[in-house]
Amino acid sequence: MSGAWIETVAWNADGLVPAVAQDAKSGELLMLAWMNREALLRTVETGEAVYWSRSRKSLWKKGETSGHVQRVLEVRLDCDADTVLLRVESVAGIACHTGRRRCFFRRLEGEGAGRRWIETDPVLADPGTFRDG
Amino acid sequence: MSGAWIETVAWNADGLVPAVAQDAKSGELLMLAWMNREALLRTVETGEAVYWSRSRKSLWKKGETSGHVQRVLEVRLDCDADTVLLRVESVAGIACHTGRRRCFFRRLEGEGAGRRWIETDPVLADPGTFRDG
Repeated sequence: MSGAWIETVAWNADGLVPAVAQDAKSGELLMLAWMNREALLRTVETGEAVYWSRSRKSLWKKGETSGHVQRVLEVRLDCDADTVLLRVESVAGIACHTGRRRCFFRRLEGEGAGRRWIETDPVLADPGTFRDG
Repeated sequence: MSGAWIETVAWNADGLVPAVAQDAKSGELLMLAWMNREALLRTVETGEAVYWSRSRKSLWKKGETSGHVQRVLEVRLDCDADTVLLRVESVAGIACHTGRRRCFFRRLEGEGAGRRWIETDPVLADPGTFRDG
């Protein structure tokens, strides 16, 4: 069952919107993935994040193989209706398929020609044991 | 002056990446906008957020007309290198062109056919006085 609310979303030409997942407790930004209508509907109806994999062209239930499910506490929409924000409880405390807490584990450091991306976050789980973060 | 770090970013077919701005102090997610190489370079070199307007097809210095500049304290990149995270100080405490603190001012509420987007955040400044948030 869909509804007017889902058509309020400004789906792009591919029928997708970016969805940002934020840890509801720590406020930490965990990841950005994409959703189609079906992914957003399933997320809302099940209370667990489901995304659309652009590379695999299929729905992707977060934590399907890893167990790192995201329980969705709140769904928000921005002013242009073209970005969704999920405030989630990250079940295992791991959101990234590399086994880190969050996908944003690189920070730009240095000045001028010395600028580079530095990895700041430890790997908490062996990424070989799961495929979907 | 650019560098290897900027080519680490996985620019999409249009030469863009989504950039998410988060309030460094409160942790609140403020907005999602897009950047091209020039926008990211200017952001890093000036320490103030510059985005790419897809509708106007031009660089867009945040706060240019509104004064609601975003001072950038940290730039992060995600695992796939296709999303940038800015941790910012939102100078006037207003990030949205509607005059609200953040763009994500709508929350999905209700159940089933009763679901709808509810505006949860007050308008803090008259949006008629600026165009760019």
